[in-house]
Amino acid sequence: MLSIETYQQKFVEYLEDYSVVKEPKNLYEPIQYILKLGGKRMRPVLTLMTSEIFNSDFKSSLNAALSIEVFHNFSLVHDDIMDDAPLRRGKETVHEKWDINTGILSGDAMLIMAYQLFEAYDNNTFRALAQLFSKTALEVCEGQQYDVDFETRNDVTISEYLKMIEYKTAVLVGAAMKMGAIVAEASEKDQENIYEFGKNLGIAFQLQDDYLDAFGDPKTFGKQVGGDIIENKKTFLYINALNLSIYEERIQLQDLFSISPTNPDEKIEIAKQIFIDSGATKATKEAIHTYTQKAFGVLESLNISEDKKLLLKQFGEQLMNRNI
Amino acid sequence: MLSIETYQQKFVEYLEDYSVVKEPKNLYEPIQYILKLGGKRMRPVLTLMTSEIFNSDFKSSLNAALSIEVFHNFSLVHDDIMDDAPLRRGKETVHEKWDINTGILSGDAMLIMAYQLFEAYDNNTFRALAQLFSKTALEVCEGQQYDVDFETRNDVTISEYLKMIEYKTAVLVGAAMKMGAIVAEASEKDQENIYEFGKNLGIAFQLQDDYLDAFGDPKTFGKQVGGDIIENKKTFLYINALNLSIYEERIQLQDLFSISPTNPDEKIEIAKQIFIDSGATKATKEAIHTYTQKAFGVLESLNISEDKKLLLKQFGEQLMNRNI
Repeated sequence: MLSIETYQQKFVEYLEDYSVVKEPKNLYEPIQYILKLGGKRMRPVLTLMTSEIFNSDFKSSLNAALSIEVFHNFSLVHDDIMDDAPLRRGKETVHEKWDINTGILSGDAMLIMAYQLFEAYDNNTFRALAQLFSKTALEVCEGQQYDVDFETRNDVTISEYLKMIEYKTAVLVGAAMKMGAIVAEASEKDQENIYEFGKNLGIAFQLQDDYLDAFGDPKTFGKQVGGDIIENKKTFLYINALNLSIYEERIQLQDLFSISPTNPDEKIEIAKQIFIDSGATKATKEAIHTYTQKAFGVLESLNISEDKKLLLKQFGEQLMNRNI
Repeated sequence: MLSIETYQQKFVEYLEDYSVVKEPKNLYEPIQYILKLGGKRMRPVLTLMTSEIFNSDFKSSLNAALSIEVFHNFSLVHDDIMDDAPLRRGKETVHEKWDINTGILSGDAMLIMAYQLFEAYDNNTFRALAQLFSKTALEVCEGQQYDVDFETRNDVTISEYLKMIEYKTAVLVGAAMKMGAIVAEASEKDQENIYEFGKNLGIAFQLQDDYLDAFGDPKTFGKQVGGDIIENKKTFLYINALNLSIYEERIQLQDLFSISPTNPDEKIEIAKQIFIDSGATKATKEAIHTYTQKAFGVLESLNISEDKKLLLKQFGEQLMNRNI
């Protein structure tokens, strides 16, 4: 096994060699642009790591890892159009740098290219990867649709919200790991368990993202603390607060989340106080803990050495401590 | 072998049973809507017909045929956004009836669902279908990009234009037929030849579309005659006319294609006269003939009975006579 940093480095080298720029330039240059924008490459790293966990050289899963990264970037390009986002990783989004039509069409091409990367594998592996990919990709679309739907709904339940983040982000983490296991020809049982590990860790990570957005350290949290409150986003904290707070606080919170003051400082402070007082903050911390433990619990069932289980657990802890 | 009408009917029955409406409704209802809008279902019919040409029951290729139709409709949904088209088959386009974001996301889901339809086949067939599909789908994206690029270019060559229509529309006709041959386990050689038949017929059909748009009979041509001239579209007629006409006519044609008069009748008349006088009309007719003959020529090499060759030829003639 290599270090996370080494997998990152190996993946980025492979990505650099994956030159997609050909004719027509207006289709392929935006793809090159978004793929080279950077990022932690956590999903493909998980694929490489998992194939080595199951005794296959990481090189064997480079194409599957790249497919996951191409798909992830496809979803960013199309989501950024839908969210009208001007920036991605501090740079212009594709539809800003080019235009919406370019974003749509280049995104479409990326989705197809992600499938093509499986063509490096034998028939059985090709099929297993492509089927997992289709299932996952469709769930990601469903998750995105739920997220869009929730914007205009006031009655989103906790279980609906959990399903949304599971589909929108966590299943891809699970699939990234399962692909490494598929390439390594791990048993069906191990494939399923490593998927569950990744998925539950993905849910925990996303819930923690909601938590840190309100209560994180401005010095270490990558985004603006309070950003979700400013944007009136219905996060896990908000939905729990609505469920747990008394009538007056619930009305106050709903009112707060219907305004967009120029100076949002007071709004952020009041919202955070309601999150704490209602018990939403505690519930969120507990849910993060539950899903993290669920992920770690699955590790026990894996048919791998104790050393490797420890490694996966340490990886999970590093991820949740935001040290990766 | 059954009649074209019977294949159409069998396909539509199968499509009716393909119920895609599940949660989230806002993702799947637009898919149901566009798939049920109608159309001649020519591509999937070609898949069914081809599988029977190669001695396999049409039922065996229903899923491949459906995949082709789902993909075709995916491309309509995304193209209609890019073209800002309000109507499709006389009904509201998806992005008009819902919104652009819905069009993007439902389209994405359709592209994935098209791949999933191959899961009905064994590993070898699955791979052959998925690889052909990916190659074709990417070419369709490239063709669409060329089409977009050509709108703002004044130096499009005849061979560039031919490549654009080949990619944007003809390869999918070839692929629809090849998929029928793949499912029927026809020889590689037959697969390749039936692909070439479909592709060349597709090019001929598209060139004829350009021709009929200017010179078709308003009573039988489905669209408004002169529509391309009104919209200043650089069709095969236009590009040939620029290449073949003398200096004055070329300038006049370029001027004509830079204006949008309220009453376009005179513009249409002058443009058509230049198409005729320059020899562009004749060149277009010749190109249609050449590609039709190319398609029919390939038939000779197919390892099928003379009866079936005749059937494919009659189908091609019916298609080119717009009797289907």
